[in-house]
Amino acid sequence: MGQRILVVNPNCLQGVTQSMSAALDEFRLSGAPEIRCETLENGPPGIETQAHVDEAAAKLALYFSDSSPKKQADAYVIACFSDPGVLALRELLKAPVYGIGEASYLAAAALGGNFGVIAIVSKGIARHERAQRALGLHHKLAGEIAIDLPVADLQKEELVWTRMSAVGARLRDEHGAQSIIMGCAGMARYRTRLEAHLGVPVIDPTQVAVGMAMSGLLAKRAGAADKRAAA
Amino acid sequence: MGQRILVVNPNCLQGVTQSMSAALDEFRLSGAPEIRCETLENGPPGIETQAHVDEAAAKLALYFSDSSPKKQADAYVIACFSDPGVLALRELLKAPVYGIGEASYLAAAALGGNFGVIAIVSKGIARHERAQRALGLHHKLAGEIAIDLPVADLQKEELVWTRMSAVGARLRDEHGAQSIIMGCAGMARYRTRLEAHLGVPVIDPTQVAVGMAMSGLLAKRAGAADKRAAA
Amino acid sequence: MGQRILVVNPNCLQGVTQSMSAALDEFRLSGAPEIRCETLENGPPGIETQAHVDEAAAKLALYFSDSSPKKQADAYVIACFSDPGVLALRELLKAPVYGIGEASYLAAAALGGNFGVIAIVSKGIARHERAQRALGLHHKLAGEIAIDLPVADLQKEELVWTRMSAVGARLRDEHGAQSIIMGCAGMARYRTRLEAHLGVPVIDPTQVAVGMAMSGLLAKRAGAADKRAAA
Amino acid sequence: MGQRILVVNPNCLQGVTQSMSAALDEFRLSGAPEIRCETLENGPPGIETQAHVDEAAAKLALYFSDSSPKKQADAYVIACFSDPGVLALRELLKAPVYGIGEASYLAAAALGGNFGVIAIVSKGIARHERAQRALGLHHKLAGEIAIDLPVADLQKEELVWTRMSAVGARLRDEHGAQSIIMGCAGMARYRTRLEAHLGVPVIDPTQVAVGMAMSGLLAKRAGAADKRAAA
Amino acid sequence: MGQRILVVNPNCLQGVTQSMSAALDEFRLSGAPEIRCETLENGPPGIETQAHVDEAAAKLALYFSDSSPKKQADAYVIACFSDPGVLALRELLKAPVYGIGEASYLAAAALGGNFGVIAIVSKGIARHERAQRALGLHHKLAGEIAIDLPVADLQKEELVWTRMSAVGARLRDEHGAQSIIMGCAGMARYRTRLEAHLGVPVIDPTQVAVGMAMSGLLAKRAGAADKRAAA
Amino acid sequence: MGQRILVVNPNCLQGVTQSMSAALDEFRLSGAPEIRCETLENGPPGIETQAHVDEAAAKLALYFSDSSPKKQADAYVIACFSDPGVLALRELLKAPVYGIGEASYLAAAALGGNFGVIAIVSKGIARHERAQRALGLHHKLAGEIAIDLPVADLQKEELVWTRMSAVGARLRDEHGAQSIIMGCAGMARYRTRLEAHLGVPVIDPTQVAVGMAMSGLLAKRAGAADKRAAA
Repeated sequence: MGQRILVVNPNCLQGVTQSMSAALDEFRLSGAPEIRCETLENGPPGIETQAHVDEAAAKLALYFSDSSPKKQADAYVIACFSDPGVLALRELLKAPVYGIGEASYLAAAALGGNFGVIAIVSKGIARHERAQRALGLHHKLAGEIAIDLPVADLQKEELVWTRMSAVGARLRDEHGAQSIIMGCAGMARYRTRLEAHLGVPVIDPTQVAVGMAMSGLLAKRAGAADKRAAA
Repeated sequence: MGQRILVVNPNCLQGVTQSMSAALDEFRLSGAPEIRCETLENGPPGIETQAHVDEAAAKLALYFSDSSPKKQADAYVIACFSDPGVLALRELLKAPVYGIGEASYLAAAALGGNFGVIAIVSKGIARHERAQRALGLHHKLAGEIAIDLPVADLQKEELVWTRMSAVGARLRDEHGAQSIIMGCAGMARYRTRLEAHLGVPVIDPTQVAVGMAMSGLLAKRAGAADKRAAA
Repeated sequence: MGQRILVVNPNCLQGVTQSMSAALDEFRLSGAPEIRCETLENGPPGIETQAHVDEAAAKLALYFSDSSPKKQADAYVIACFSDPGVLALRELLKAPVYGIGEASYLAAAALGGNFGVIAIVSKGIARHERAQRALGLHHKLAGEIAIDLPVADLQKEELVWTRMSAVGARLRDEHGAQSIIMGCAGMARYRTRLEAHLGVPVIDPTQVAVGMAMSGLLAKRAGAADKRAAA
Repeated sequence: MGQRILVVNPNCLQGVTQSMSAALDEFRLSGAPEIRCETLENGPPGIETQAHVDEAAAKLALYFSDSSPKKQADAYVIACFSDPGVLALRELLKAPVYGIGEASYLAAAALGGNFGVIAIVSKGIARHERAQRALGLHHKLAGEIAIDLPVADLQKEELVWTRMSAVGARLRDEHGAQSIIMGCAGMARYRTRLEAHLGVPVIDPTQVAVGMAMSGLLAKRAGAADKRAAA
Repeated sequence: MGQRILVVNPNCLQGVTQSMSAALDEFRLSGAPEIRCETLENGPPGIETQAHVDEAAAKLALYFSDSSPKKQADAYVIACFSDPGVLALRELLKAPVYGIGEASYLAAAALGGNFGVIAIVSKGIARHERAQRALGLHHKLAGEIAIDLPVADLQKEELVWTRMSAVGARLRDEHGAQSIIMGCAGMARYRTRLEAHLGVPVIDPTQVAVGMAMSGLLAKRAGAADKRAAA
Repeated sequence: MGQRILVVNPNCLQGVTQSMSAALDEFRLSGAPEIRCETLENGPPGIETQAHVDEAAAKLALYFSDSSPKKQADAYVIACFSDPGVLALRELLKAPVYGIGEASYLAAAALGGNFGVIAIVSKGIARHERAQRALGLHHKLAGEIAIDLPVADLQKEELVWTRMSAVGARLRDEHGAQSIIMGCAGMARYRTRLEAHLGVPVIDPTQVAVGMAMSGLLAKRAGAADKRAAA
């Protein structure tokens, strides 16, 4: 049986999960680990406050407390930029658990320069800063700015684009960001356009986390091949 | 034309490049970016001192100063744990440049716990510590211990194994390492055996760096697909 | 109507709440703010893992989502050493919210020297370390050691004492701790005995957090008196 | 005999000591530890420079070198925001010694957000920053701004108020301070008005230091009661 | 035979070496260690990029690989603000090796306040920041600003002066720099004028590095005298 | 009139001042700045506690409050490893003020490796650590160990030597110190012997501080010569 990466969207919006899954299609190479995206059906509809983070964390632990086959995987990705439940799941699950917020900061650091973060709402910035400090990468933060659109307006693609591109340009020009992290799980569809517009690498959190998970699983295969050869 | 990852082994040993390339076979999925491994033919035969690092760095900059097609790539991996030339190449090249040392520390951090490093020689430890501090991840270092075998003995596989497994066990048991980084480019063949022996994740630097590079390139494709769809 | 401090024990054990409340009797001075201790009735029976912390956090947010009079207070103390929900409650509630873990580290820092922590179980130590780093006080940690008794044995007072006093002595003698924090909410009854035994200050987390809350409320009164005088 | 907290004003101005003592009246609850405020009669008339701090430190050590009963206490508070002599007195005295500068930073940290500091004179800011760094809490400093009034004008209450409220508003609005520390010992009379004006917690250093001292002494009583009960 | 300090200018410009040597004349006291300045003849013509730094580093190691008498010294100073090769030379050479960038930061720290750095080109600032962090002195950086003149214009003394004095004034006034480091090896001729203009200490990197080297050698003589006396 | 460096021994022991001055003889080159050593006659007989530091600091400020010619200098060195009064004197005096503790750490950092400190008494170690952290160089501390001899025994040269050499060897071998700082003002006579014994650089604090002061003054001359040439 093949390897599987299970991506869990900890908010309850199926649409977000679907667009997330679509943004991972290029990672579904022939022979690559399966990438399955699931929705935490009883999760909060959005994760904006610390209380939402805590709620999602608690529900994720419950979600994984039964061992139904569809929850079995060789690597897990928790697809919310605030990394709810990741610390707990690392204690509960044997396979590696990646948080997409952490993965973004680490992927940005792998490029070498300082990064900027485009937040959805200003009140998340302090929470993100705590995560950057905990990881040790806050010294590489050029700045973080929110687009601060009302939730209803997050569906208005051009409005979002106008804000994201303006915020991205400020992070690049005023803060010296050499790469830009889109600080939210469901924004992958703007990645290419934003990268082309800004001329610096733009990171989608879910993609880089899945990439890390996939990398880890491919390395395990390499190992297994060695072992078979040795046997 | 497809995407290409160029892995450059900055020491001059073709054998090291070959074993490195072999350890990347599982990353060569159908449809995935091409992974090409090259040897810096005038590089030092091994990179043990800071002078070797500086020599390799200078020669890598020269290597990339001509723009022959075989040096063109969409992502570069410098396959020496001391990351020679990576800072300079990031200024010189447009595509992302990954250092396998940095990539290892970042990949270990993505797993969540503290990491231990198995060094080849003790005199490299201070150099590695400088890199860990520069990145901001030194607070996650459980410890680093060298196997300290004479170069000639590095070919004696069981002797190397005996040392590596002993050092790995000390890092896990006495230092509390929750993952182990093999602090050298050419040790991938021990990864699975060591992971099985120690029961904690073992990281091969070249594999994780190539994984990060591949992930970045797949994300670009996803973007391109979006753009085509939008067009 | 007078000022009130609401102490919430986020585990479901009424006995723990009662012994906590008893340990606060000396803070119930005539004319002082009322100190009321409540139990989070649907909380986990103990908080040992990160999943327990997340569960308690989520349930605390729910607990405070209704505004029944008995949940109204002028200051809140969350009485678990892992500070579950404290970050979220600071966003939700207008009055100050004290976490007893944070309060312990801060109270130890106010004494000037390095502190040691007596943990209940070893697996909590990494979690505590994260909190110490987040606060900025990890550089003052002399060391942390767990008594690691099975839950059932935590009722055996002399056994607990034997372990705590031995661990405290090691922290003082081998690690140089100049004060000792009892890293758990329900251990106040050992405080005096331990302080007498060790000859260094011993901190009960709930007491110091309630002391901080009380101090803040008394300061507010002083202000109010000024205002009355000014009117 | 009851517990006593001795607050020493290390400048020689009796008026400052009196207003300080008045601001502590609400902490003088029935049955609470006695709070006695003394003036260091040969202290400098104000503590603005590092030389003043050193002078006060040396004189405080002399002050405590005789063991007259009126200098005996169960806890000491040194009531100058620059914490003169606190390090030395902790070596000299057996009872805990609280510096009001340190206590302010710690009390602000207990509230969870970043704090701003209102300094009296700009030249004190670098000195305060050294203290914030030494404690480990500089990462929580939103900013520090001085009112920079000539000493003579510090008696002009409305002028001081105008400056303090303007500086406080800037710290809150431009620097993001979530609480405000009044960086001077004798400003308690502005606390309530400032808190009402700014809508964020305002900390008077002497009050929070005395609160911490009182909390420590009440905890000791709780212990003593346990011991009596056990006997 | 007397003590010798060998200063190596790692760019190939003899004129720079000569002006460097001239700026050291006052250190050539009667009886003092000899100060000899050499040019790395195959060095790059200027050191502006990381690739230049790496090239200079590699060539310096080669330069010192032969042990001709003129390369023998009791202390070495590498006279480029980016400290090329210093780490490697410390491994290769027995005598102490001083980098003038490091020496500048350390000398500024010895004065007690925060320092500003006048860079030649903006693209060097990130490189300098890495060095400041590696040393542990980044917290003392008030700011760094480049004069950003084209190389050709660096010969136009009044133009350089106009830029340097303006940048120095900004560092002092807007960033609070209490001393100024001229972030380049060949600028000593502006030192006095700039110090007089700005009213704060101005540091020439080569001078302070040679001063440190000389101090170390004089201390060794003191020791030798002791030993002779003891014999 | 020539330049002068004034070295003040802040303890009252003339003998210490004399031996300090003798250890500076090799810095008294022909034409070099005058080096004058003075004793703070009312200083404490030794500086072992923080109270001694504070006392010395206060008395140093008084000492410099009169402007008698013999206290005029172009640079000041405060010759006690705990740097009493240095912060205040930098505010009071126009000329640079060097603390020998700070100068030692900075001089050790200029050598590139980690340093060990030989303390006289264990109770000074925490005080030194505060200074190392404040400076930003604590990450370069390999370790600090005290010889812990009673004051009376500090005159017994062979006993002191036995302890110092043993402590130095432990710092080098067990802690990895690559240089050794003698953490006290009056130990210069052991420097050469210790350096020869240990095979790593040994730093006398007063010598390196005077060396830095001298370097700064020689640089000023260079400037003056430029100015004359320009006139």
